[in-house]
Amino acid sequence: MSVKEIPYKIYLEEKEMPAQWYNVRADMKNKPAPLLNPATLEPMTARELGQVFCEELVRQELDDTNPYIDIPEEIRSFYKMYRPSPLVRAYCLEKKLQTPAKIYYKFEGNNTSGSHKLNSAIAQAYYAKRQGLKGVTTETGAGQWGTALSMACAYFELDCKVYMVKVSYEQKPFRREVMRTYGASVTPSPSETTNVGRQILKEHPGTSGSLGCAISEAVEAATSAEGYRYVLGSVLNQVLLHQSVIGLETKAALDKYDITPDIIIGCAGGGSNLGGLISPFMGEKLRGEKDYQFIAVEPASCPSFTRGRFAYDFCDTGRVCPLSKMYTLGSGFIPSSNHAGGLRYHGMSSTLSQLYDDGLMEARSVEQTSVFAAAVEFARVEGILPAPESAHAIRVAIDEALKCKETGEEKTIVFGLTGTGYFDMVAYERFNNGEMTDYIPTDADLEAGFKGLPQV
Amino acid sequence: MSVKEIPYKIYLEEKEMPAQWYNVRADMKNKPAPLLNPATLEPMTARELGQVFCEELVRQELDDTNPYIDIPEEIRSFYKMYRPSPLVRAYCLEKKLQTPAKIYYKFEGNNTSGSHKLNSAIAQAYYAKRQGLKGVTTETGAGQWGTALSMACAYFELDCKVYMVKVSYEQKPFRREVMRTYGASVTPSPSETTNVGRQILKEHPGTSGSLGCAISEAVEAATSAEGYRYVLGSVLNQVLLHQSVIGLETKAALDKYDITPDIIIGCAGGGSNLGGLISPFMGEKLRGEKDYQFIAVEPASCPSFTRGRFAYDFCDTGRVCPLSKMYTLGSGFIPSSNHAGGLRYHGMSSTLSQLYDDGLMEARSVEQTSVFAAAVEFARVEGILPAPESAHAIRVAIDEALKCKETGEEKTIVFGLTGTGYFDMVAYERFNNGEMTDYIPTDADLEAGFKGLPQV
Repeated sequence: MSVKEIPYKIYLEEKEMPAQWYNVRADMKNKPAPLLNPATLEPMTARELGQVFCEELVRQELDDTNPYIDIPEEIRSFYKMYRPSPLVRAYCLEKKLQTPAKIYYKFEGNNTSGSHKLNSAIAQAYYAKRQGLKGVTTETGAGQWGTALSMACAYFELDCKVYMVKVSYEQKPFRREVMRTYGASVTPSPSETTNVGRQILKEHPGTSGSLGCAISEAVEAATSAEGYRYVLGSVLNQVLLHQSVIGLETKAALDKYDITPDIIIGCAGGGSNLGGLISPFMGEKLRGEKDYQFIAVEPASCPSFTRGRFAYDFCDTGRVCPLSKMYTLGSGFIPSSNHAGGLRYHGMSSTLSQLYDDGLMEARSVEQTSVFAAAVEFARVEGILPAPESAHAIRVAIDEALKCKETGEEKTIVFGLTGTGYFDMVAYERFNNGEMTDYIPTDADLEAGFKGLPQV
Repeated sequence: MSVKEIPYKIYLEEKEMPAQWYNVRADMKNKPAPLLNPATLEPMTARELGQVFCEELVRQELDDTNPYIDIPEEIRSFYKMYRPSPLVRAYCLEKKLQTPAKIYYKFEGNNTSGSHKLNSAIAQAYYAKRQGLKGVTTETGAGQWGTALSMACAYFELDCKVYMVKVSYEQKPFRREVMRTYGASVTPSPSETTNVGRQILKEHPGTSGSLGCAISEAVEAATSAEGYRYVLGSVLNQVLLHQSVIGLETKAALDKYDITPDIIIGCAGGGSNLGGLISPFMGEKLRGEKDYQFIAVEPASCPSFTRGRFAYDFCDTGRVCPLSKMYTLGSGFIPSSNHAGGLRYHGMSSTLSQLYDDGLMEARSVEQTSVFAAAVEFARVEGILPAPESAHAIRVAIDEALKCKETGEEKTIVFGLTGTGYFDMVAYERFNNGEMTDYIPTDADLEAGFKGLPQV
């Protein structure tokens, strides 16, 4: 075998891009548990899910047997505008760390939404369009998902209604404005436009909103209007399916140079990036073909994998959505107000939760000052200013590379660089000014959250 | 000749990246006029320039005979982190416009600085490092150049002092924070840190600053400190030289698919992007090998090419820098306060000015509401949210494609998409809200500017 020189960036050609998504559930012996109807506690049927979600997406949500699902040509065309994304060899970071480890990152930030979220947004918009819908509704917190969906809807000329957590709406006017530029209507949540919003405003007149409330408003807006459905940017099986394009491209790029990773690292909030990145590699592990070390990285202030319970819980704080069996901190859990690094979701993808519970992957929690320190170190040598979310993965990749420096092992480390931090400069400013602090919830804090878990 | 299918994005391989910059002055019969010493009105000598600029950069500034200059390996390594940049076939825009024209754009925004400025910043930082300097100083207005230089200095561990026009410093805290994240010190200008700054603050206590003032402060900071030099992001010959990497890559990508452009379009402020993009094509035209239509696009509110004078003028409003022979509106010209689209410089690269005066290229001015309309149209179909500067080129590319629709001509149009608009959402918001207006200076406005031209 000839040794090929590895370029800084491995790009696939367009014709090498995946034509099918990979559905890791098909290879899982222990399937993720089904969503439950919050009223009956029975598994949600396709018909029930179809009242909220697009038909084809419901099919994908429930399909745990087909390993490959064709990517429609229209979606592939859109992918070609910003994909394949580069798999980057972090030569400069390796040099800076003086590590024998070989570090690669799959960079998903080179599109206007600034993150991997676009991979699923365009798929969900496409199926909505194909179903003949007028539009879709969603919620957004930090704004990455809302931006991605706005772009996707603009492309297919679909109406897009985004409920944006009020505090973000006010503190991130630029994110809001990007969405408006793509033609989306952006409403600060809670709002007067829904029953649930009006109710919340009545009970908590000064509230700055929450993701749970925004979800409830978006679902109501979808189900109460003709020709609309609700879409979600993480957690769901369908989202992991679409995001498998990240892992498939990563694997194809590595295969091209005969590289086998030892460790694969991803940040984890709801699990969309991590699940997408590891899927095809996890498939090999599940089928007994290869072994890899998978590491999920989460904030110490929102430690659903590392300190949560594996139990049925509500997907939203408003408790109107289906129940999912997952690692959770309780649907009422809200990270400390000093938390700045994203990945704030109380639960986790049920697929990843099952894989974690089966011992097929590890998880680590990291504190935010160490995350931002890693972000800055990375930015200065590799050029890219990472999203705080992505910097969680950078932190652990650097830690692992430094371990290799001690042991002399030449491990190959791959991590997901999910996006850029251009709209997160308030958090960077706090870090640059030395004003950022860490907070780890006490056991008592967590117990309070677990008390709210439903009895299923 | 077999017809190859054109992918959405043409990427060169790393080994196909240019190893040399192309110096268009070598092929010009009428060379650009030399810079003049403002005190003596004699051509600036290398020794005089060396007091302000790095030695190697002075050599490049004065070299109008060598057509190719090697790109040092260290710079090529950095380029590999974000280059080659893609040449994108705008399939979706073509479809939207229903034009027979074939539209391509060279996209320079896929790096954290968000623009092509990084191509010259890394070169200038490298030569400063090689000369053994401690650091460099510069000014920045909107912040693209300051961000690029901060990134380059972080990479070479050079100190970086940025004087940022005070109004931008206050209105663009995120830009400022990106620079600080890369370790630069950012000072709002005018400041108390320089004599010229203190003098201006004394005379105009409430001033919000200007680029001219920031240049004066940066130059003073460089020349009054041991081991510092001043660097500039546009206008100069050396900058056009470094930016030729844009055109060289564009040409290599087109050649790969046997594509010959008919029209090449770039926005023009100081000329760094336009000059870089057209250089190798202009070289062919100058050598009589091929012909192309080149179009410089500038704001109607700052029309140096289309309504300026070709004359010696000061490069800065403070009148401390050398004089350059160029198309200029007068060094005291300030665009209308409603102007939001960048490209605010009163003058123009002397190289491009000479080429324009020799009839080798055209220029057009466009009004900003039509520029932002083009930006939004482009963003919605091509995904990328463009910088307002870049949107000037988009405007004319769309206009030319629509002409082809009328005539049925299948012209090949190439334009430079210099960067992204993520830090320009205030301007987009004005446009989205219908609050943006146009302003074209009257002849009397311009005459006032011309009166200030020096008598050379």
